[in-house]
Amino acid sequence: MPSYHAPVKDMQFILHEMLKITESDVPGYADLDAGFTGAVLDEAGKVATDVLAPLNASGDREGCVLENGVVRTPKGFKDAFEAMKQGGWTALDCDPDYGGQGLPYLMGTAVGEIFVSANMAFNMYQGLTHGAYSAIHAHGTADQKATYLPKMVSCDWTGTMNLTEPHCGTDLGLMRTKAEPQDDGSYLITGTKIFISAGEHDLAENIIHLVLAKATGGPDGIKGVSLFIVPKFLVNEDGSLGARNGVAVGKIEEKMGIHGNATCVMNYDGAKGWLLGDLHKGMRAMFTMMNEARLGVGLQGYAVAETAYQNALGYAKDRLQGRAVTGTQNPTGPADPLIVHPDIRRNLMDQKSFVEGARAFTFWGAHLIDRSTRLDDAAAEGLISLMTPVIKGFQTDKGFEMAVAAQQVWGGHGYIEDSGMSQFARDARIAMIYEGANGIQALDLVGRKLATDGGKHVLAFFDMVKTFIKDSDGDDRMKGILDPLKTASKQMQAAGMFFMQNGMKSPNAALAGSYDFMHLMGHVCLGLMWARMAKAAYAALDAGTPDPDFYQSKIATARYYAARHLPACGLHLARIESGAEPVMALAAEAF
Amino acid sequence: MPSYHAPVKDMQFILHEMLKITESDVPGYADLDAGFTGAVLDEAGKVATDVLAPLNASGDREGCVLENGVVRTPKGFKDAFEAMKQGGWTALDCDPDYGGQGLPYLMGTAVGEIFVSANMAFNMYQGLTHGAYSAIHAHGTADQKATYLPKMVSCDWTGTMNLTEPHCGTDLGLMRTKAEPQDDGSYLITGTKIFISAGEHDLAENIIHLVLAKATGGPDGIKGVSLFIVPKFLVNEDGSLGARNGVAVGKIEEKMGIHGNATCVMNYDGAKGWLLGDLHKGMRAMFTMMNEARLGVGLQGYAVAETAYQNALGYAKDRLQGRAVTGTQNPTGPADPLIVHPDIRRNLMDQKSFVEGARAFTFWGAHLIDRSTRLDDAAAEGLISLMTPVIKGFQTDKGFEMAVAAQQVWGGHGYIEDSGMSQFARDARIAMIYEGANGIQALDLVGRKLATDGGKHVLAFFDMVKTFIKDSDGDDRMKGILDPLKTASKQMQAAGMFFMQNGMKSPNAALAGSYDFMHLMGHVCLGLMWARMAKAAYAALDAGTPDPDFYQSKIATARYYAARHLPACGLHLARIESGAEPVMALAAEAF
Repeated sequence: MPSYHAPVKDMQFILHEMLKITESDVPGYADLDAGFTGAVLDEAGKVATDVLAPLNASGDREGCVLENGVVRTPKGFKDAFEAMKQGGWTALDCDPDYGGQGLPYLMGTAVGEIFVSANMAFNMYQGLTHGAYSAIHAHGTADQKATYLPKMVSCDWTGTMNLTEPHCGTDLGLMRTKAEPQDDGSYLITGTKIFISAGEHDLAENIIHLVLAKATGGPDGIKGVSLFIVPKFLVNEDGSLGARNGVAVGKIEEKMGIHGNATCVMNYDGAKGWLLGDLHKGMRAMFTMMNEARLGVGLQGYAVAETAYQNALGYAKDRLQGRAVTGTQNPTGPADPLIVHPDIRRNLMDQKSFVEGARAFTFWGAHLIDRSTRLDDAAAEGLISLMTPVIKGFQTDKGFEMAVAAQQVWGGHGYIEDSGMSQFARDARIAMIYEGANGIQALDLVGRKLATDGGKHVLAFFDMVKTFIKDSDGDDRMKGILDPLKTASKQMQAAGMFFMQNGMKSPNAALAGSYDFMHLMGHVCLGLMWARMAKAAYAALDAGTPDPDFYQSKIATARYYAARHLPACGLHLARIESGAEPVMALAAEAF
Repeated sequence: MPSYHAPVKDMQFILHEMLKITESDVPGYADLDAGFTGAVLDEAGKVATDVLAPLNASGDREGCVLENGVVRTPKGFKDAFEAMKQGGWTALDCDPDYGGQGLPYLMGTAVGEIFVSANMAFNMYQGLTHGAYSAIHAHGTADQKATYLPKMVSCDWTGTMNLTEPHCGTDLGLMRTKAEPQDDGSYLITGTKIFISAGEHDLAENIIHLVLAKATGGPDGIKGVSLFIVPKFLVNEDGSLGARNGVAVGKIEEKMGIHGNATCVMNYDGAKGWLLGDLHKGMRAMFTMMNEARLGVGLQGYAVAETAYQNALGYAKDRLQGRAVTGTQNPTGPADPLIVHPDIRRNLMDQKSFVEGARAFTFWGAHLIDRSTRLDDAAAEGLISLMTPVIKGFQTDKGFEMAVAAQQVWGGHGYIEDSGMSQFARDARIAMIYEGANGIQALDLVGRKLATDGGKHVLAFFDMVKTFIKDSDGDDRMKGILDPLKTASKQMQAAGMFFMQNGMKSPNAALAGSYDFMHLMGHVCLGLMWARMAKAAYAALDAGTPDPDFYQSKIATARYYAARHLPACGLHLARIESGAEPVMALAAEAF
């Protein structure tokens, strides 16, 4: 059975040596000294290793079962959920006004990674609740906040998001679910929603569904969509639970993975709902939830790859097979461990350099969110808005690829479910799809985010890379990292230039290259993160750290990423510059 | 439920316009005119669509069940297997001396693709039998051939290959299974073998296991390994079945995919076996089987991707979502079909250009095998030996990647098992692992095959590319394909040069780049195939074909591959030239 141990040392390095959070002006960061963050992360790591990880494989095997309208989660989930609630983990970065602990989003992200790595399917119950909490927090009335938020902060009640219908996923303008206004100010919601994660289960007293629907009389298409709060049980004036609402699970789906989470068809049959935010402005409110969810999904991408990597590494160190080509390494054993072989090493370095780079990228992104929400820093808000599709799309593509690579280290045993390696690949696969399939992320990035505010956020990013390179230019030790980063960044600029010059007259020319651009930009972002980490590592070495091995390993991994992954930017640029013609040459009928 | 239709037109194009098989001097090819091959492929296509494909999803869902030592295959498999036998499909390219139809290997390959596409797990029962047939055919005594081959040609008896043990997969020198010689010339085999595909099932009267074991008194390690024929039921002098042999299934594995095929733990407890080939030369005999199996697995890589592609394409044409950025395409519908969107198109073109290119590559490889076996053409034998790890490793990596890409077209529905798209990805995953994990293929390629016979086979391949480019140089229409191919081929040569210059003093420098070289070479091979197909297509157009759309589509797809996939060679070269240092910089303990 796979095991998991929280990479607290690595997280601490990012928080305190790369991001230097206690030196930041973000309100609340000054309290986050290394002693405090270390204690929180260690404690989260214990819960993850002792409570959550042991339920990961069994949750996959058992799955969720629907019987007589009730969904039973896998054995042990209920107790584990209770433990999470009791430990206060669900309230970590929530508003103290509603029972939260008020820690920065960055801390919620670091802790979230640990829980996702240990048990992705389990963590979704809480993760979706957090998304719904944020939407109500941002758009709810005072009454709505008072009614729902305290219970959602504690996860006594959980939350869901209901967008997709059988005939429409990406294109929500086609939505058919209706909302009829009632005299008491409520609405009656009728329609069918599919792919509703945690739509029904036995972990909470109540489930608060956020449902997109078309209110009577609104405009056609996406502009007539509003967001509604539809609780499973109606809530009485005194906060106690009342009658069962007209919403029921119709079916749970058989899926490739995340079996521990119930993916439900939800039938709304005149269910009572209350408008959240403005009428016909449902997408705006929903986007609060979706943007958070997209970052959370990007985190899932590398968090699952982290566990897969840990278990691939353990196997590579233990499994004896063949001899090193440069001479026997394990003379007293029948063979050398797999890790001596260069191609196994390449595979492990791919995984390590991705996971650690993605962690830095995600933590940096969380830090931008804190700057945006706690400091009203518009530049940070613009930057994280630009980065969101990259964090989601690039990291989940690579995260899946790395989970598959980890499985490969196990050879035939990786294909057998007993090893647990297949589950990591199967679970990771969904992250490329939900919260906007990665093609949609690429479209959002190239079709919308690049040009936002006249392109100022992407220019700010280029500046950031340039400034970093310039500031580090004197240090020859950084050359092997900075030169490839400089090249990659120039390739990203060239791609942006290509879009500017061609996109206006032929939108297809930009969109045919959107997926490649998302990956190109992902590499530049991870390249920048690795450069920052290498710089921090050299600083520690120069200061005479007592733990030089850790920092040397960071530098070697940075050099690996620069040497073997940044050159992918050239390939992506070549594809982008080949334009729309090769992609669109065939008529649809010619396929 | 997914559907499948055999791509007979595309196969005919490769056989008759690219390979021009009836003009070849290979014995037997003259009979393979378009009318004949078309009739065979159409017939195979009918069986695939009507009999095999409908059992693919149900076979995945039901899996195999072990009860009281008996393995029950999924519902319908027995009847379908009977239909395959009755149709003579199992005997297609087998030796007429033993009841085969004596068709060339190339025809077996084309038909094999169709059956694998329709139902990969099902086809393994027959595929492994063919491998065992080939090993006995090549290394058996006259008696052994007479006893086993006719029944294996008809698939009344099926075959298996037994290599892996719990503690050794790749490193077979660690093998513990023992063979004790008996006075009657037989051996008693004792040990445990794992991952035995089709090790036990209810489709055949007898199962002929080919088992690697260490005969008493042999040298240590891989040089003391011999191959034995171990039938499930002993065979009497008159060919009837006798006593049950001392071999039994201990367990069937829960796997990520290919659930319709029973993957068994086989326990040999003093089972009676007979030496196949020379004592202590078991690996040589086993390699006959493994090389064939590797080509078969390379075929699985793209054959599964073909079905996945067909079903992604169907969905992309049917599913209405969003509007084309260049203007509405389906004004009477609520939205345009997915296929109008450039990123969906990119995804489909990736799949199409890979699958069709891989088909050409595999058919060409099968043609080389026919040249080698039917003409004793040593150059062809050297070339296919060089290509085998590329066909296996590159095509299964890409095949899986493309099955995942096809799943992505379906969005959330692709993650739901009902769609069948998940199964394609889960089934395709094994092909990267079995018959030598792809890292081993890369090692075989760079560590062994490149240098075979003084490197003469790879030089012959370079010559072939060069000559083709030179011969086509006058045709400006080919420029967009030939220029990228020339660049890619030069990059492959540069990689070979790097290995020559660095590999001798530092084997790690070569091996750290082996995986990238396998992919680099795969792209050059597919690039050459696309150039050949484009040339054939222009020839048809120039000759005034009545079906210009088909040939235009070939040319457009060739240009796509050249523009968007051949540039990957530059990335692979950059990685190769970065050498061993980035890969091996970390000590094992530093991970």
